[in-house]
Parts: sequence; C-alpha cells; structure tokens
Amino acid sequence: MKPMGPIPPFFSGEDGMLLIGGCGAASLIDEAGDTPLFVYDLNVMKAQVARFRAAVPASVSLHYAIKANPYGPLLRQMVRLTDGFDVASGGEVEMALAAGMPAERISFAGPGKRDDELKLAIMAGVTLNLESEGEADRALAIGDKLGKRPRLAVRVNPDFDLRGSGMRMGGGSKPFGIDADRAGTLARNLIQEGAQWRGFHIFAGSQTLDAEALIETQRATVGLAARLSEEAGAAPPLVNLGGGFGIPYFPGDRAVDVEKVGAALSETLENRPPILKDTEFAIELGRWLVGESGVYLTRIVDRKVSQGETYLVVDGGLHHQLAASGNFGMVIRRNYPVAIANKFGIDPAEEPVSVVGCLCTPLDRLAEKVALPEAGPGDIVAIFLAGAYGASASPSAFLGHKPPLEMLVE
Amino acid sequence: MKPMGPIPPFFSGEDGMLLIGGCGAASLIDEAGDTPLFVYDLNVMKAQVARFRAAVPASVSLHYAIKANPYGPLLRQMVRLTDGFDVASGGEVEMALAAGMPAERISFAGPGKRDDELKLAIMAGVTLNLESEGEADRALAIGDKLGKRPRLAVRVNPDFDLRGSGMRMGGGSKPFGIDADRAGTLARNLIQEGAQWRGFHIFAGSQTLDAEALIETQRATVGLAARLSEEAGAAPPLVNLGGGFGIPYFPGDRAVDVEKVGAALSETLENRPPILKDTEFAIELGRWLVGESGVYLTRIVDRKVSQGETYLVVDGGLHHQLAASGNFGMVIRRNYPVAIANKFGIDPAEEPVSVVGCLCTPLDRLAEKVALPEAGPGDIVAIFLAGAYGASASPSAFLGHKPPLEMLVE
Repeated sequence: MKPMGPIPPFFSGEDGMLLIGGCGAASLIDEAGDTPLFVYDLNVMKAQVARFRAAVPASVSLHYAIKANPYGPLLRQMVRLTDGFDVASGGEVEMALAAGMPAERISFAGPGKRDDELKLAIMAGVTLNLESEGEADRALAIGDKLGKRPRLAVRVNPDFDLRGSGMRMGGGSKPFGIDADRAGTLARNLIQEGAQWRGFHIFAGSQTLDAEALIETQRATVGLAARLSEEAGAAPPLVNLGGGFGIPYFPGDRAVDVEKVGAALSETLENRPPILKDTEFAIELGRWLVGESGVYLTRIVDRKVSQGETYLVVDGGLHHQLAASGNFGMVIRRNYPVAIANKFGIDPAEEPVSVVGCLCTPLDRLAEKVALPEAGPGDIVAIFLAGAYGASASPSAFLGHKPPLEMLVE
Repeated sequence: MKPMGPIPPFFSGEDGMLLIGGCGAASLIDEAGDTPLFVYDLNVMKAQVARFRAAVPASVSLHYAIKANPYGPLLRQMVRLTDGFDVASGGEVEMALAAGMPAERISFAGPGKRDDELKLAIMAGVTLNLESEGEADRALAIGDKLGKRPRLAVRVNPDFDLRGSGMRMGGGSKPFGIDADRAGTLARNLIQEGAQWRGFHIFAGSQTLDAEALIETQRATVGLAARLSEEAGAAPPLVNLGGGFGIPYFPGDRAVDVEKVGAALSETLENRPPILKDTEFAIELGRWLVGESGVYLTRIVDRKVSQGETYLVVDGGLHHQLAASGNFGMVIRRNYPVAIANKFGIDPAEEPVSVVGCLCTPLDRLAEKVALPEAGPGDIVAIFLAGAYGASASPSAFLGHKPPLEMLVE
C-alpha cells in the first residue's frame, strides 16, 4: 500500500456523498450531464483570497497567474477577487481582457514573445515584463511603429533562488528574465527611450511550503529591487515580488504558514529603502489561489483483477489530469489525494486498489496501490488538487477522447 | 555539452536548407503560413511500409495504431498503405471510419471503454478487443439490446513481457487485457454466447530496438495464442501479435533489424501449431511507421545569454512536443535530435546552446546544451522524431498559445 496526499480541509461529506460548494458530487455530475468533470469551488478561492488579505499588508496587491486555470467563469470571478492578472501569451492577454480585467492591470511575462504578441499587448496597453535586451529592442521598435508608448517592466533573473521550490525560476543561468547584473542598465535605457516605466518583475520560484524560504526570498527581492532602481536612476511604480506559495500535494506536506510570511513581509516593507517608498508591491499567485478548489470527478467503468491486484478503471485519465499521473515535472510518481466521492467519509478505506485512466498506455495511472472503500462500475472517483494545472495543462486530444467538462460552483 | 540522438537517415539538406519530402523547410513554412509547424513526410511512411512488407511474411497483416498520429490526411494515406487500424477510443473509431477504413478492419482496444463507446463500435461493426470479463458482459448485453452480434476478440495480458521495452504492456499484474490463465475460458464463453469470434490481441510492450527480444516475444505470443485457442476450443480468425518496434531517439540507439525479425517470424509461423493453421496474423505498429516521418519546425524568437549560457528561445514548446521536453514517460531528460533547418549540413555545429520553448515554465526545454550552428531570431529549429506522439499527445491549450499547424508532404 502506498500513501496519498492530504485531502484539502475544505471538503466534507454528507450521508456518504462528497460535497463541493455545498452540492453533492453526483448531483453536480447530473447537472453537468456527464463525467469526467472538473468542479471548481469558488468558496475555496474566496477563502484563500481572504486569508491572503488578512495576512499580508494592505499595500501589497494580489495578482492571479491565469495559466494556473484559465476557465472563463473562474477568470471572471478572479477579476473581482484580485488586483491584477499575470499572463504568459497573446492568447492569455485576450482571455484576461475578455474576462473583464482592465489592460492596465495585466502584465505579460514569457521568454518567447513573438512580434504579433508584443503588438497585441502594446496596442491593448498591457504591461510587458521584458525577458531580454533583444525583446526590449523589439518592443520599443513595435511601439514606435504603432505610435504607442509601451508599458514596460523588466523581468529579472535574480541572483538567488527560492529554497525548497518545486520550480526554480531564478538563481544560476536561466532562460527567464535578465540577469540581475544587467537589469538596472536595461531599465535605465528603457526610461531614456521614453517607455512608460512600470518597474520590476522578480520571480524566484514556485510551489514551496517553507515559510522561512519565502520570507528570505521576499526580503532579498525587495533588496534587489532597490539596488536595481538605484542603478536605473528611477523609482519603480510596481515591483512584482513573484509568488511561490505552494499547496500540499503529498504525504507529509503541510500548508504554507501564510500569516508568518505576511508578518515578515510587513516588516520588510516597513524597513524598505527610500527609493521604494512610493512603490506598489504585488504578489503573483496561481496554484495557491485555485489549486485546492478543484476536484476532478471521473466514473469507474470497470473493476478488474490481474494477478491478485485490483484496478479501478475510470473514464478519465492523464489526458485531463496529466500532473496526477506523475508525468509532468515529477521525477518519482506519488499519489495525489483521491477518494470515492459517493462513499465519502463513511465507508472505511480498506481495500488496496490502483486507479487507472482509460488511456491505452501504462503511463495512465491516477492512484497507485491506495486504500479506498470497496468500489466498482458506476461509482465516482474524486481526485483532489485539480484546480490548477489540470484541464488546461493536459494533452486533451490524446487518444481521441472527449475533452472534460468544467463547472464553477459557489 | 550533451549528446543528442541520431537524425533519421531520411533527411538531407540542399544549399544549407533541410529538405522534407524534397521541399525546403522555409518554403513549407511559407506554404503553411506560420510556425510552429509539424511536417510529416509520406515518403518516409511508404519506405517503412515497404521495408516491413519485404521483411515480414506476406501472410502477416500490417495494422496502424492511430493513436501515434491521428492527423486526418495522414490517416487517409494509411488506409491505403496498411491492412487495418487499431483504435483506442470511440473518438478514434470515428476518425478511422471518417478516413475510409472499413469497419471490419478496425479493432478497438482500451481498458476503460464506456458503454457509449461499446455501442458505437458494435453498431459500426468494429471488433472489440475485450479487456476484462466485466467488459465482455457489457458488450454482450449491449449487442443483445441492439440486436447486433458483436465482433469480439480477447486482449490477453501475457505471462511474459517484451525485453528492453519502453512501455511494458504485459508480464506481471497489468490493467491491460485479461490474465493469460483466464483468457481461454473467457474466449470459450464468448463463443458459446454467440459472439462473432475474432481471436486474440496479445501486446507485450512497445518501443524496443532489440530484434532478439522481438523474436522471442513473437515466438512466445504464437505459442500462447495456440494454447489459449485449445482452451477456447476454437481456432482464432485473427491473432494480433502486438507491435513493439522502436525507433532510435537517443545517443547510441540503433534501428531495429526488421529483416532479422521478419525472417524469424517466418520460421515461427511455418512451425505454428495446427490450431493456428488458418489464422491471420497481424502486427500493430504506430511509432515505427510514422515517428521518423515527422519534423517539428519552430522559429527562434530570441537569443539570450544568462550567466554565460546561450539560450535559443523558440515560438514552439512542450505544449506541442511534450515528449521532446522529457516530460512524458521519461525518467531522465535526454535530447531528441535537433538541427537549425536553414543551416543544415553546411555550417559546423559548434556552438553550445540550449533550445527552450516559449512557455513560462522551466519544464519547457527542447534541447539541452547541444552543439548547433550559430543561430538567432528568425532561424528555424527542426526537432526530429516528431511524427508520433507529438501534436496529439501534448497539452496544446497550456498557456493559451495557438495550436500547431500540421502538413503532410510527399
């Protein structure tokens, strides 16, 4: 038997049925019309936003990184709940605008922006987080040609990284941003060239659960922003401190102590260097805001035994939830939290089973040798932590199955 | 510097431009209108089919596993080049029929077939490769209800596996097929229930380069098919011997000696047990038929240096070519063969660079520290071995970029 990660504390059951946003999983499937179905609970997102607002100084803005989950109805809610969107492609610029986020609160980072994407962003008035000197030249030239002053910030590859980070984005040689030792000079040049100077974007890593690591990184980031601003000879209107707040996926993981991080950030900002006195700060979160809100519901199609091992075969799989299959940036496959949605919290979880997807590939394993209540065809498997990097980050066309359904509940 | 796999022998250059199907890569991009672009060379597929036909006894049919590449124009050609399609979902049943493959030459395997997929296949007259006793019961019940005799075969989880296989599909406990010790009994029951008996599907693994392993597996498969047929008390009209032919991806990889495999299979079939005397045999190939035919062309958007390392940032990435980024069933990231398409074969490859995609994630690496001719914005990167498990097996919606273009050339 192998362990699984913790079920997020937001979910409970009623008469053996998993509730999501107060509704039973089976009724939600009836309402949607079919499985597989992603359900996103707006209450969880609201709770996360409220927790952030309570913990972090009011002067710090909250940005949503829409790549975590670009589902339209969810984006429209996030427009109201957050202070800005961070996007990573021309397509995401369009999604952010369509959801109702004003252009001046959208910033666009990404190492391979094409000319057509730069043009789209400049025309719309979206801020570009520049990733290289070459991109800066192209943005300025396109702005000139369009007769439009581009809103420009510099994305910095910091000379430190986020300890315990699942995805290191800074420290050492990186394709992201401009090395810290050249960023100040680039900023100075941009200002001289007449761009609307927007400041710095400094993203050191993502998905850490270690509050001390976040505190240390935020402190270093504020210090670096001040140093670069001195070099640039201008105060930055905005400093995006990056994100990095992780969520617990696996056995032994513990949620980030956001209150501790907020208290330390408050102190860091109180003592910030004078050049950052009027600067707005932002924290950019994706996974932490939406990851725990999502549940992937998939129906058991078959129950089979092979050489003494029991498999529950479901109608979903890695084509919808690649990350849960362990095939997306994970070296060793570990089990996401999983449950039988219609036997939630009452039946003892004592049967060792593997949950496999419907794809004809051995990669399609959603849970390996976990303990679940006895289940079979017709029962519903719930895979938690499906709110971020799920539907949009999976190869949905693989093997010609239908795309998943999605639904936002409140 | 890290090594890369071998460029497939089908490709050459002319005046420094990579030719695909006799056309220059840059002209193909002009014709398609943009990058990123997958180009599939029909000549390569024809060469592979011809090689197979010459090497393997004429009594062995060639099936195409369409999950490797379901691009419509390619499927239509494969209808003519091969003897049948193997599909893995209701969606693929529809694609196969739409491409013009007659239903009686389509078989449908997959561990999680839903009732609606079983119904579709039975109505169309497609053969079902049954994966469990439960699925057999459902198929018979649906056939009864529809008043249609289903065409049924049994997929077997063999009691051996394919040595050196990239994807083990047999040997030990598996979610695929029915354990060999129960398959004969199930077949007997199906025949008694009045199904159209189609035979056995025995797939022990995929992507091996080892001819001896394939020979041994094919020999064991024929032996197992005979034993199961005796248990079932009926000769199987068809035995699908599986596939397993790999292609060279990485340094040191060598192409399968198909002629050796064919000669040995010829001998195995000549000496086959009497119960298989009138049986048709099939080999099911996907990757081997189409993998080497494909080239993914993506344009360099930026060239940047971070702490002394040079990055070529392209407009494609893992959202189109997940496998090349090392995030799909690969434990250690290794480099696919890659080239600068417009500096092919003439410029010395002596600059160490990493090729990264345009996605804002450190996972998006298409080539790590390889030697390429000096290149920059506007130049075209070619990533080979993009004909199988590329466009359709990648998270194309991730980060909101456009889907790739695809093109078949001859």
